Amino acid sequence: MMKPKALVLPRESMLKQVCSEECKQLIESAFNPVWNDKGCDLTEEELSELVEDAEIILTSWGSPILTDAMLEKAVKLRAIGHAAGTVKKRMPREVFDKGVRVYSAANRIAQSVGEHCLAVLLTIMKRLPAFNAEIRQHNWKATGQKGRELAGSTVGIVSASSTARAFLKLLAPFKVNVLLYDPYLSEEAADKLHVRRASLEEVMSCPVISIHAPALPATEQMITRDLIALIPDGAYLVNSSRGAVFDEEALIEELGTGRFAAALDVFVKEPIRQDHPFLQMSNVLLTPHIAGASIEGHLALMYAVVQDMLAGFAGQPTSYEVTERMWETMA
Amino acid sequence: MMKPKALVLPRESMLKQVCSEECKQLIESAFNPVWNDKGCDLTEEELSELVEDAEIILTSWGSPILTDAMLEKAVKLRAIGHAAGTVKKRMPREVFDKGVRVYSAANRIAQSVGEHCLAVLLTIMKRLPAFNAEIRQHNWKATGQKGRELAGSTVGIVSASSTARAFLKLLAPFKVNVLLYDPYLSEEAADKLHVRRASLEEVMSCPVISIHAPALPATEQMITRDLIALIPDGAYLVNSSRGAVFDEEALIEELGTGRFAAALDVFVKEPIRQDHPFLQMSNVLLTPHIAGASIEGHLALMYAVVQDMLAGFAGQPTSYEVTERMWETMA
Repeated sequence: MMKPKALVLPRESMLKQVCSEECKQLIESAFNPVWNDKGCDLTEEELSELVEDAEIILTSWGSPILTDAMLEKAVKLRAIGHAAGTVKKRMPREVFDKGVRVYSAANRIAQSVGEHCLAVLLTIMKRLPAFNAEIRQHNWKATGQKGRELAGSTVGIVSASSTARAFLKLLAPFKVNVLLYDPYLSEEAADKLHVRRASLEEVMSCPVISIHAPALPATEQMITRDLIALIPDGAYLVNSSRGAVFDEEALIEELGTGRFAAALDVFVKEPIRQDHPFLQMSNVLLTPHIAGASIEGHLALMYAVVQDMLAGFAGQPTSYEVTERMWETMA
Repeated sequence: MMKPKALVLPRESMLKQVCSEECKQLIESAFNPVWNDKGCDLTEEELSELVEDAEIILTSWGSPILTDAMLEKAVKLRAIGHAAGTVKKRMPREVFDKGVRVYSAANRIAQSVGEHCLAVLLTIMKRLPAFNAEIRQHNWKATGQKGRELAGSTVGIVSASSTARAFLKLLAPFKVNVLLYDPYLSEEAADKLHVRRASLEEVMSCPVISIHAPALPATEQMITRDLIALIPDGAYLVNSSRGAVFDEEALIEELGTGRFAAALDVFVKEPIRQDHPFLQMSNVLLTPHIAGASIEGHLALMYAVVQDMLAGFAGQPTSYEVTERMWETMA
């Protein structure tokens, strides 16, 4: 049997980050690959010339977008695998009409985000940066302040997205009570996740809060000034979804009072501007939108979509496939 | 039935840290308590005058030590509950000859240590302090460096102590491979913990290493210069047991090269001296011997020993009891 022709679009510097040696071997053995040896990303024109006989297209960050015109030409195209996150702005929705199957590594990235959320939450609850700084300033236990324990506490979660589910898995041995707000989550699904469905007001009143809402028009500024005011004194807030989910001006004001702590990975405008008030706040742990980024997590992305694509071709169940039904509610 | 007379020794400022309201009520309902309302710790002389008709003694950090002479006088003593860690230097071993049952909250503290170990490990693996500092210096993703993922990695653990077991529970959803060195751990016990028994050399060669050895003459400087040299480049080392477990001079030299990262909570001499080389190292996260300390963890200590003591009196199995058989190998 002829092996399907696969365009592997990531430039070499990106490919080595998202495609392990094992994955390269898998691509060589399962496909007839055309590697991008240009030393940089292809232009749309270059891709347009190649799509005609492509059966598979593998992409990642920086790869050119698949346009309507390309889709018309790509008569042999059977599957697209995106070794990165969202695919929504990378191709026309009409790919599904053409019978093209679409795979995205977003759920693999979600695992990294889950780990990040637990990491930053424990870091701020245990005041690790403060202890580290105090020791270096020769203040051994000077403040008498103690860290907090996560085990047994109540955690409020906004949205049962894939990043929230990854976070929940890691929270399991901490035996926390979880209140979860998600208008699409059924009672039955909540039971399976061992969470209790709650209103956004209840979730924002928890002593520990983590935001996992997808970036959609419906979620923009969903965490309003009034909701931010509900966050209890001494609480811990984690946001690893999107900055625009918050009324950021209201968040700046409330965090500026120092009455609760936060770990923020995302901001309305990124990179964060040099005079942003967050940069002066000691009760905020800042990271530059890297919750989904880790060496091992990135290196697993291409493998996840290629393996899943092969499962799909073999008529087996898939884990990373994007279907037309998911298009509306996904980021 | 007459309720047993209980001396509750912690001074008020300590009691409110280690004894919850719920625990105070339990003590009032189960015992005939004598609270320490002196405003400070009792002296040995003051305790000596009280022990004669005490059936129960409850202690914590700062409480006077039970001497041989007191033990002779304490003819009614049935149980000692220590709402803190080690009891070994707090009473003569002869308490067991007198039929006194001993309870320590060390295993409850171990839970806090387990959380701390995961917290600091994730913090250094994800380079959170570095990202936080870089953003504030207006270097958004300037270095291009990524954090690491803990899930799926190999973790080497020294000693199957209670803190190691608490840490292992929290590691479960990360699906890590664990190599564990403990000369007292049977093959069967290792299987139950889902770890593989390994030599100290194998454990110290892992990409992630956590030290949980108890403070005993046999563990002093057990991590020698040669073992420290085995730690791989790019590894992550956590020590939350005792500083003296390491050849600290050799550790200073190796960490000084920057070839691996560490999170250290304990040091040969504490507080750490003001010119200690660790204070100048950016690849080391420092905390002031607080792995076992958290607000919630401390507040649970007295309850743990009192509840367990009541279980013991009722002939039920106990979780926090210290027996004479444990005396040799415990810290």
